[in-house]
Amino acid sequence: MSGPDILGYSAAALTVFTFLPQVIKTWREKSAADVSLNMFIIAFLNQTMWLFYGIWINNWVIIVTNSLMLPMSGAMIALKLKYGKKTS
Amino acid sequence: MSGPDILGYSAAALTVFTFLPQVIKTWREKSAADVSLNMFIIAFLNQTMWLFYGIWINNWVIIVTNSLMLPMSGAMIALKLKYGKKTS
Repeated sequence: MSGPDILGYSAAALTVFTFLPQVIKTWREKSAADVSLNMFIIAFLNQTMWLFYGIWINNWVIIVTNSLMLPMSGAMIALKLKYGKKTS
Repeated sequence: MSGPDILGYSAAALTVFTFLPQVIKTWREKSAADVSLNMFIIAFLNQTMWLFYGIWINNWVIIVTNSLMLPMSGAMIALKLKYGKKTS
């Protein structure tokens, strides 16, 4: 594997975990008033687009990373709707 | 431009704006207690990795999108440090 490959795969692996600290924090604290609903709606729609793109061009890195990120975006939308008083 | 190209560029364009609603919301409300600091630290480091990757493989879409996202992740780290009481 080349240098750029190693960096690209490492970056993709880290990308998957971007939303996880927010999911864990909101899950534990049951408070999401400060969290933007629109951000996670955009992320969810965007990851769906990337997933279709990955399937279309047959790129398994894009397929796997976005398949793993979608449940976290979905969880944040659900947690925001449950624990967020203000929605913006 | 092919179908996958159009979908890919559209997805990349939308990705750039993922964090913007959160930046605007936190900027306006001056409250970030529910926002995860770790999430935006991961995002900032990750976008830096993607930026170096984009430069390395000479991919302008990766370079441009991550150059535009880095200031928003940086802004969220600064806003969290300023307006977030709890850090996690």
